[in-house]
Amino acid sequence: MTTTQFANSLADAQRLVTGYANKVLAGDDRLLEAMRYAIVGGKMLRGFLVLASARLHDVDQGVALRAALAIECIHAYSLVHDDLPCMDDDDLRRGQPTVHRKFGEDLAVLAGDALQTLAFELLSDPTLGPNALSLIRGLAQDAGKDGMVSGQMLDMAAETASEPLTLDQITKLQNRKTGCLISWSATAGAVMSGADSTALRQYADALGLAFQIADDILDVEGDEAKVGKRVQKDADAGKATFVSLLGLETAKSRAAELADQACDALAIYGDRAETLKEAARFVIARDS
Amino acid sequence: MTTTQFANSLADAQRLVTGYANKVLAGDDRLLEAMRYAIVGGKMLRGFLVLASARLHDVDQGVALRAALAIECIHAYSLVHDDLPCMDDDDLRRGQPTVHRKFGEDLAVLAGDALQTLAFELLSDPTLGPNALSLIRGLAQDAGKDGMVSGQMLDMAAETASEPLTLDQITKLQNRKTGCLISWSATAGAVMSGADSTALRQYADALGLAFQIADDILDVEGDEAKVGKRVQKDADAGKATFVSLLGLETAKSRAAELADQACDALAIYGDRAETLKEAARFVIARDS
Repeated sequence: MTTTQFANSLADAQRLVTGYANKVLAGDDRLLEAMRYAIVGGKMLRGFLVLASARLHDVDQGVALRAALAIECIHAYSLVHDDLPCMDDDDLRRGQPTVHRKFGEDLAVLAGDALQTLAFELLSDPTLGPNALSLIRGLAQDAGKDGMVSGQMLDMAAETASEPLTLDQITKLQNRKTGCLISWSATAGAVMSGADSTALRQYADALGLAFQIADDILDVEGDEAKVGKRVQKDADAGKATFVSLLGLETAKSRAAELADQACDALAIYGDRAETLKEAARFVIARDS
Repeated sequence: MTTTQFANSLADAQRLVTGYANKVLAGDDRLLEAMRYAIVGGKMLRGFLVLASARLHDVDQGVALRAALAIECIHAYSLVHDDLPCMDDDDLRRGQPTVHRKFGEDLAVLAGDALQTLAFELLSDPTLGPNALSLIRGLAQDAGKDGMVSGQMLDMAAETASEPLTLDQITKLQNRKTGCLISWSATAGAVMSGADSTALRQYADALGLAFQIADDILDVEGDEAKVGKRVQKDADAGKATFVSLLGLETAKSRAAELADQACDALAIYGDRAETLKEAARFVIARDS
């Protein structure tokens, strides 16, 4: 599979998740509009991972799409709240005004709240079968006080800390902030079908860390117009990153190593996992 | 059962839910501290309703306590976000500084977010058995874009509307903003045990509306020191309320009628439902 074929596969996921989001969030009130705006236009890497892992485990695509939209709802809610003036105070996201810039802060708070609720509503549908509770429990653990939100807390604490974080601390922070939910996404297919998720979890752990190192590299080397959000944020804030701790070249080779590890973890799936392997290579080569 | 006995029963629920919250949220980081602060000290009427309806249906108290804390997490998260400067901008809640006044706005956003996640984590525990998915689905529907959050949207829209709301519109707004989650709480016992929840739903619908009318009466007649939050808010904002639309005396008699209706709906439970009946009488007689 070439990168173009992977790009097609990601575009398929974007089209499916976007179409489903527009259906679930149909209506002309401002809340629904803000929720759609927060979701549509994202890379939808997490939704792609759900759909690809579901395909590996022969999960019905309509059922998998619920889980794919659910994780994009969680991701979108976290970005909407993270961009708020009292948090990161960002004006730009995906090259567009952030939700609070476009709809107001009050609506941004509520749209984020309702996106989180929607994620759990989507996963509680009877069509997901008996494994739905495992999916919900995993998502709640990965998104909440011991997962993503605690990662954001660590991130906020790092900004005012007297000492820059160590590599171990950054790795823990990033695992909680983004790694947990990438892992949820990549293992969702196995969990939905009740299969063993060990291989997908190993894949996801390496992928998540590679993703975050690549993000730090983009923050240094990226072109704001392509990245679609402010770059050089971490350097400007004097924050420790994988790049500041490892140096640019070591960070790049570490990301490449992790992408290889991610691919190796999928050996048991043979050729069927090519799209997921391509995703790992894409993550470290992306320019946005 | 006298009002004192009901007060004892509510105090029991407060003690149980508080103890469990302190256990689930144990730890000394600021996020956990803010989450505990947001929950502890509330009336816990919703948690009480869950525990009382669970007792009616012989649901194990340890299992019911998860659902009781879950609904208090949802209620607390909604108050924390509602109090934010970009929303109602309130400094006082339950007689204490609001979460953002005490912990900062960023932490208030995150603590609210993590409280919502925790609600779904609590309900996805295997001990809740096969009916957990119904509970989760109901909570997500009642709390999200078609429930509580949409009620808050209607409330915000009412503040800038050129015409005051009609009685039908206020009833719809209040049903979504508070009624849905009161209904979820009062029916949780039946849902957890897989029993018919019709009677409890009728009880809850009347109770929820009575509760809201009583709230509007408190906003006019209440003593800020006892109520624990700013009063006269609606009148100051020129907002339509049950009191402004019905007049104070009619509002009081309507609340009393609804409390009677709530009690009548519980006839099938006989004497076992005395505590819930007392709750309906308490709701319209409370001073905070």
